[in-house]
Amino acid sequence: MKSALMLLFFSFCVSGASIAAEIPISESSTECLDCHSSIHPGIVEDWKNSRHSRITPGQGMAVEGLGRKISSDSVPESLQSVAVGCAECHTLRADAHADTFEHNGYEIHVVVSPDDCKTCHVKERQQYSKNIMAHAYGNLANNKLFQTLEQSILGATTYKNGKINKKPADEATRAEACYYCHGTRLELAGIETRETELAGELEFPLIKGWPNQGVGRINLDGSKGACTACHTRHAFSIETARMPQTCKECHEGPDVPAFKVYAASKHGNIFSAMKGAWNFKAVPWTIGKDFSTPTCAACHISLLVNTDEDVVVERTHKINDRLPWRIFGLIYAHPHPKEPDTSIIRNQQGQPLPTDLSGEFAATYLIDAKQRDSRRQRMQSVCLSCHDASWTRGHWQRFENTIKQTNASVLTATRIMQDIWKHVIANPADSLFNEAIERKWSDAWLFYANSIRFSSAMGGGGDYGVFADGRYQLTQTIMELHQHLALQKKRHGDVNK
Amino acid sequence: MKSALMLLFFSFCVSGASIAAEIPISESSTECLDCHSSIHPGIVEDWKNSRHSRITPGQGMAVEGLGRKISSDSVPESLQSVAVGCAECHTLRADAHADTFEHNGYEIHVVVSPDDCKTCHVKERQQYSKNIMAHAYGNLANNKLFQTLEQSILGATTYKNGKINKKPADEATRAEACYYCHGTRLELAGIETRETELAGELEFPLIKGWPNQGVGRINLDGSKGACTACHTRHAFSIETARMPQTCKECHEGPDVPAFKVYAASKHGNIFSAMKGAWNFKAVPWTIGKDFSTPTCAACHISLLVNTDEDVVVERTHKINDRLPWRIFGLIYAHPHPKEPDTSIIRNQQGQPLPTDLSGEFAATYLIDAKQRDSRRQRMQSVCLSCHDASWTRGHWQRFENTIKQTNASVLTATRIMQDIWKHVIANPADSLFNEAIERKWSDAWLFYANSIRFSSAMGGGGDYGVFADGRYQLTQTIMELHQHLALQKKRHGDVNK
Amino acid sequence: MKSALMLLFFSFCVSGASIAAEIPISESSTECLDCHSSIHPGIVEDWKNSRHSRITPGQGMAVEGLGRKISSDSVPESLQSVAVGCAECHTLRADAHADTFEHNGYEIHVVVSPDDCKTCHVKERQQYSKNIMAHAYGNLANNKLFQTLEQSILGATTYKNGKINKKPADEATRAEACYYCHGTRLELAGIETRETELAGELEFPLIKGWPNQGVGRINLDGSKGACTACHTRHAFSIETARMPQTCKECHEGPDVPAFKVYAASKHGNIFSAMKGAWNFKAVPWTIGKDFSTPTCAACHISLLVNTDEDVVVERTHKINDRLPWRIFGLIYAHPHPKEPDTSIIRNQQGQPLPTDLSGEFAATYLIDAKQRDSRRQRMQSVCLSCHDASWTRGHWQRFENTIKQTNASVLTATRIMQDIWKHVIANPADSLFNEAIERKWSDAWLFYANSIRFSSAMGGGGDYGVFADGRYQLTQTIMELHQHLALQKKRHGDVNK
Repeated sequence: MKSALMLLFFSFCVSGASIAAEIPISESSTECLDCHSSIHPGIVEDWKNSRHSRITPGQGMAVEGLGRKISSDSVPESLQSVAVGCAECHTLRADAHADTFEHNGYEIHVVVSPDDCKTCHVKERQQYSKNIMAHAYGNLANNKLFQTLEQSILGATTYKNGKINKKPADEATRAEACYYCHGTRLELAGIETRETELAGELEFPLIKGWPNQGVGRINLDGSKGACTACHTRHAFSIETARMPQTCKECHEGPDVPAFKVYAASKHGNIFSAMKGAWNFKAVPWTIGKDFSTPTCAACHISLLVNTDEDVVVERTHKINDRLPWRIFGLIYAHPHPKEPDTSIIRNQQGQPLPTDLSGEFAATYLIDAKQRDSRRQRMQSVCLSCHDASWTRGHWQRFENTIKQTNASVLTATRIMQDIWKHVIANPADSLFNEAIERKWSDAWLFYANSIRFSSAMGGGGDYGVFADGRYQLTQTIMELHQHLALQKKRHGDVNK
Repeated sequence: MKSALMLLFFSFCVSGASIAAEIPISESSTECLDCHSSIHPGIVEDWKNSRHSRITPGQGMAVEGLGRKISSDSVPESLQSVAVGCAECHTLRADAHADTFEHNGYEIHVVVSPDDCKTCHVKERQQYSKNIMAHAYGNLANNKLFQTLEQSILGATTYKNGKINKKPADEATRAEACYYCHGTRLELAGIETRETELAGELEFPLIKGWPNQGVGRINLDGSKGACTACHTRHAFSIETARMPQTCKECHEGPDVPAFKVYAASKHGNIFSAMKGAWNFKAVPWTIGKDFSTPTCAACHISLLVNTDEDVVVERTHKINDRLPWRIFGLIYAHPHPKEPDTSIIRNQQGQPLPTDLSGEFAATYLIDAKQRDSRRQRMQSVCLSCHDASWTRGHWQRFENTIKQTNASVLTATRIMQDIWKHVIANPADSLFNEAIERKWSDAWLFYANSIRFSSAMGGGGDYGVFADGRYQLTQTIMELHQHLALQKKRHGDVNK
Repeated sequence: MKSALMLLFFSFCVSGASIAAEIPISESSTECLDCHSSIHPGIVEDWKNSRHSRITPGQGMAVEGLGRKISSDSVPESLQSVAVGCAECHTLRADAHADTFEHNGYEIHVVVSPDDCKTCHVKERQQYSKNIMAHAYGNLANNKLFQTLEQSILGATTYKNGKINKKPADEATRAEACYYCHGTRLELAGIETRETELAGELEFPLIKGWPNQGVGRINLDGSKGACTACHTRHAFSIETARMPQTCKECHEGPDVPAFKVYAASKHGNIFSAMKGAWNFKAVPWTIGKDFSTPTCAACHISLLVNTDEDVVVERTHKINDRLPWRIFGLIYAHPHPKEPDTSIIRNQQGQPLPTDLSGEFAATYLIDAKQRDSRRQRMQSVCLSCHDASWTRGHWQRFENTIKQTNASVLTATRIMQDIWKHVIANPADSLFNEAIERKWSDAWLFYANSIRFSSAMGGGGDYGVFADGRYQLTQTIMELHQHLALQKKRHGDVNK
């Protein structure tokens, strides 16, 4: 990238001062923009409004203190004095990307990966690689037990001669179901020639698993994750990432109703009412001044300071740094796994689960009490910025009691289910999830115990803990399991198969 | 309408230039305002803030190019030089409206219809009359099969001597249930005399089916539709109509969860985070500049241009112009009907359905592959403004695969249901929808197959395709249907009736 | 509180005029701020942005007319000339509060109660004490029948030897479930000594039931209620209280889906689209000028005027002042109770319910037709500001018809349930709510009849009345109850126990 051919005039902010400056755009990016600004105005305008077009990495590196966003100590000199344009990212590390192709004289790759972003944001990338989310593809795809659940949900079902038959789910279905959030495995499937509007016939890579921006996407350079899951392309906006709606995309259903619970909480209420007056761009993010109630990011990710500019909590992209307990997705709530690759976990029965069916923790693989304490304290330092010590402690006592109580309720449901299995009314041999009554059991923990814990953790209670997929439904499900068992026992028969 | 008696001072925009102008208000509207501004401040202030009070039709007609909002070539001269006030609409075509009544010397009608709006907006009115929504009343009320579903849901249920009895739904229930969205049939029921605060005893028409603003309302001039369903009275606002919440009013439930899916999609996420900085008023609507992610209107209705002001897609009020597939409301997804009046459709068995119970299309009544291609391309031109060709194609391949897969799953559910009918466990003779097990079957397609397709189409996947009324619930329902069949077969009895 | 040591410079509004003024802060509050501004920046900044820091009670009392927010005629002189700071509230009526403790030379209490707020806002406090919400704790905790429902939902369930056992719910669970909204009973549990960051060892009260901000909280001075349920601490914001999201916190689940219904209504649609341009602070609140469609507060609480500044409806904090009918939470909709303490109500069978199981009203305890008329008219005066008389009447006729129809459907469900009880298939002796089939019955009225009425009342219809927990699910539940009865009758057995 030689001298800049094009200049954009922008007003931007460094440390609060507004400076009008000319940001040079590289020759290569200028060439990209020549065609793509009319073909893909949505992409180009997004970028023009982004920080990447308004400040050079060199300028970003000059920022000192907590406001600095570039965490890499060194950035290649060729990138330092131009805007972070199209070519700067889409030609980075060309050899590493299986989808690199020749395009108007440039070696372009379609899918920019976290290892590209690492060029400037190394710390965030390192943290994120330890984030359980970065491993979301393998944590599902490489867990044999989860695969039976996945297949029972996504597999194609046919019916013939009174029997249900199940075929494995096809690739396209998997990509837009579980792996929409977990991330797909991208693979180069070939090259195609396509007629283009502006440049005639051109060659492009064919990518299996594309499009996708799931948190654990396996990229074409072998890296894991997609920064764009939250920092939505091509605005790369911290503002968007800090909004709870960003998390909602994957944390909304009954399996993980985080957004719904937040939106109905006091925090969510204040956010909805007041957010118009907040500053979602400020780095660091000042409690009380920039925002008056936390969003998801504030509690889980962001660098927060108090009005004296003392750090309240450090930024982290390894989300469970502030989380002692893992409260969803599994049969029982349990301490967070030590390693982000959860497919290595084995319980005492050798199943790939963090607990036994009786709720016993697979302790070897999970963080210990000391680590839980340290994470709890980290999170509580956020709570304490707006709540006094007795409030904060009271909240946490209730939450940890709720973990205990919901685990106990799930144990009750599981024991009834085990009796159903024992009386050969349902058959656990093939799968734990492919009979109607087994699904009632999974409702109990996957949806209801789950929602109750979210409601407790993030709302201090409320309807998602009672009538909205909460305790009402959890106890109802237990009664229904029990009614089914009683009914079938009377009949001495096997009607489920 | 003679000379204007009253003047309002407003600042308004034509082609980007802000002009302060005096907009004359007709003598008749001035008289209306004299009383109604204190009686109905909500209506009057809404109108004062509307474009209708800030520009005359004559000025609107002087706008050239894509920014022009008045699509009629000629507008009666008497209307051209005054604001579009109360009297301008509510006295239009007095003879055509059954609810026209004498009111302080004027011939007023209560319900303004699309044929009134046509005076200035003829093109939109013509398009909308071909919109399937404009026929929503008859499409439900004139379909005998749908009527059995409607009655099974809305009919009054009593219980006596161990038997359930069903009486037809009353008018008021129908008006606030299905026909709230579909639109009611308005009828003049008589005249009443009422004591008024400001003018003593006055006569007013009594209108059956009122109030209503459903999309397919049958008006008192015989016209179909209500522009106010989206362009909410009396603001007539394009801003409101472009917001996804406008569509939510009728597209929110499990039968048609469009808004929920949108709100949890990446598009919805960006909308929520960024909409504060967008321009919802601009006509035409410039991609990237006025907005950075589509709302419902952007994909389905609005006139969009790129930053070079080239038209990306023409405005249409016939919504399925950009839709090859009809993905909700019926047992199977199918190509869009050729005609907006769907009550004429017959499948091979002569039922008023666009497919057989086996999923076979009633092809005579549905658009063909060529027409589907053309509509797909029209929609894809919107996609391509922000996504490259491989992304767009990948998205559509998954979506059309999902149509196929969900149809296959519904076929499985239907075949089990047919076995249940065959073994005389449930009785399809009277209605397909009035026994508990039949409702489980309708859950499968009316809610779950449905939600999965919306999730695919508008979100590229996500929770509404899996755990939130998605594939988890669809497969669960199939298992439950099968369990019911197995259970009842064992018993050789008929317990459902 | 002697002379002020600290001054804050603020711009504030009295009667529309913006005045820059120095608001003195008391010596005691200044001392509080010295430490707490760095420990609890969230609290302190909230307060700094609040009206309480920007105007003294004396200045507030000088406001005349409808804009006056201080309803007390006299306020202690010592409070009149300083900002309403930390100490002003947290040292008020020290003797009355069981949690008062010595803290750096001050007598502080943690939990500020409505009787503290009464110092300036006496009228609102008096109204609220007659509000059914203020009695929400006792209305649940002192109703024996409701207690059986509460325990069946919240109680800990274990399973042994084929039997389900239920233990009473623990305190922490109750506090974050039903009593999160209803309010907990606060009790002083002791004193603890805690090491603090800034002042070494200090003593603090231990409060059982804390934290909580439920509407009917029993405070440590014996008073009932929490103003902070809506006027969120420490912003005390009328802006927040007027937003529908504030109500959502407790009115969102299927038992009381007010927010969901609102958000999908035309009112909610306009609110979402247009709220950015509204004035949520203005007192009084002018219809059309300050807002163009009602929020929850507008219809139920706020003082509204028309553009001539005539009062349309008076402010009330006794919410059912504008409500003839109570449409949720009980088996049948019924006229509002006369007294806010509903635990005194007895039906003809002596049960603590406002109706018999047959739907007959416990008329002695409920408002009569005349009172219903007067409340209906009060609410309709709000409707009529934006809707004409025929619209308003039509809306209310449908709503009251829906009350009748949903009550009839619930009667049908109840009669089937009674037959189930009669045939000893389920056992009503212990509880009406602890068997699976009984919960199906409670679904019918607690969720579905309920949602239909909300949809009717606040949306004029729509999906929450049909497919989203509406008539579809209500009729489905009736069919399922009936199917269960038929099935069990055939078997002549008792399988539920």
